[in-house]
Amino acid sequence: METRHILSVLVKNNSGVLSRISGLFSRRGYNIDSLSVGKTENPEVSRMTIAVYADDDMLLQIQNQVAKLVEVIKVIELTPQDSVIREMVMIKIDATQENRASIIEIANIFRARIVDVSLDALIIETTGDQGKTDALIGMLSVYGVKEVIRTGLTALQRGNKELKNE
Amino acid sequence: METRHILSVLVKNNSGVLSRISGLFSRRGYNIDSLSVGKTENPEVSRMTIAVYADDDMLLQIQNQVAKLVEVIKVIELTPQDSVIREMVMIKIDATQENRASIIEIANIFRARIVDVSLDALIIETTGDQGKTDALIGMLSVYGVKEVIRTGLTALQRGNKELKNE
Repeated sequence: METRHILSVLVKNNSGVLSRISGLFSRRGYNIDSLSVGKTENPEVSRMTIAVYADDDMLLQIQNQVAKLVEVIKVIELTPQDSVIREMVMIKIDATQENRASIIEIANIFRARIVDVSLDALIIETTGDQGKTDALIGMLSVYGVKEVIRTGLTALQRGNKELKNE
Repeated sequence: METRHILSVLVKNNSGVLSRISGLFSRRGYNIDSLSVGKTENPEVSRMTIAVYADDDMLLQIQNQVAKLVEVIKVIELTPQDSVIREMVMIKIDATQENRASIIEIANIFRARIVDVSLDALIIETTGDQGKTDALIGMLSVYGVKEVIRTGLTALQRGNKELKNE
């Protein structure tokens, strides 16, 4: 059965690494649900978090193929049990003087933050698991959601473990 | 002169789109500084935010090439003047009973959030512009930063504009 898995991949920075990894997924027809990549504590190394729907066999194949790439330092699956898995979402909402206060109230309940305000719109930022962010978007949809941007999931192992030393 | 530019790209979901876009960057030797991609308010459409170092000519070339891909609905540059540009960062720090309180104090000053705690480590999450997140990492580095994960920059235009309708 295909379920969502989170892969955390440490890679050497190089202009081709993202293209090689994403090419590997697309050639096999695996649809990446979300991907985020940014520098780590070491500027020569980036960390990629990939969410992908796959069954157990496919996942093992993907991990093996990714691990074979020369730029890849390490690849592991992170599970909800042993990791903190979160995303950041920004939501732009139609807002008038009349309904601005009720929108802000909802944002406060979700501990979301107002990051931009104009006469006719608000941008709200929130972080958390996808269940929470989806619930917030649902609550706000009655006001008219104009744009949603998600960073994609990012994840770190709980506790004192380090990916690079495993 | 090469400076950092933020491109916001609306794309149709398809297993090859990420590989085609990142391939286009790598073939021309443009190093992607960060990239994040996730679904939008429309599940058939994803929004990609790409940070890339380029001069004005290179940037124009990249935009034109990206716009030609069949899966690309729209590509625009977002500037700090007219956009909210933010990233989420998670930082894992060595923490003991003795220094935990001072680490939490620093987190509070930066309005960062503790998302995991164990006997010997803390995971702190923060959102904001890169200047702020770099400053927080700097402050925490005296305690021993074990891992840093960045979502990469994400950006939305300020006010009531919508990328898809421009």
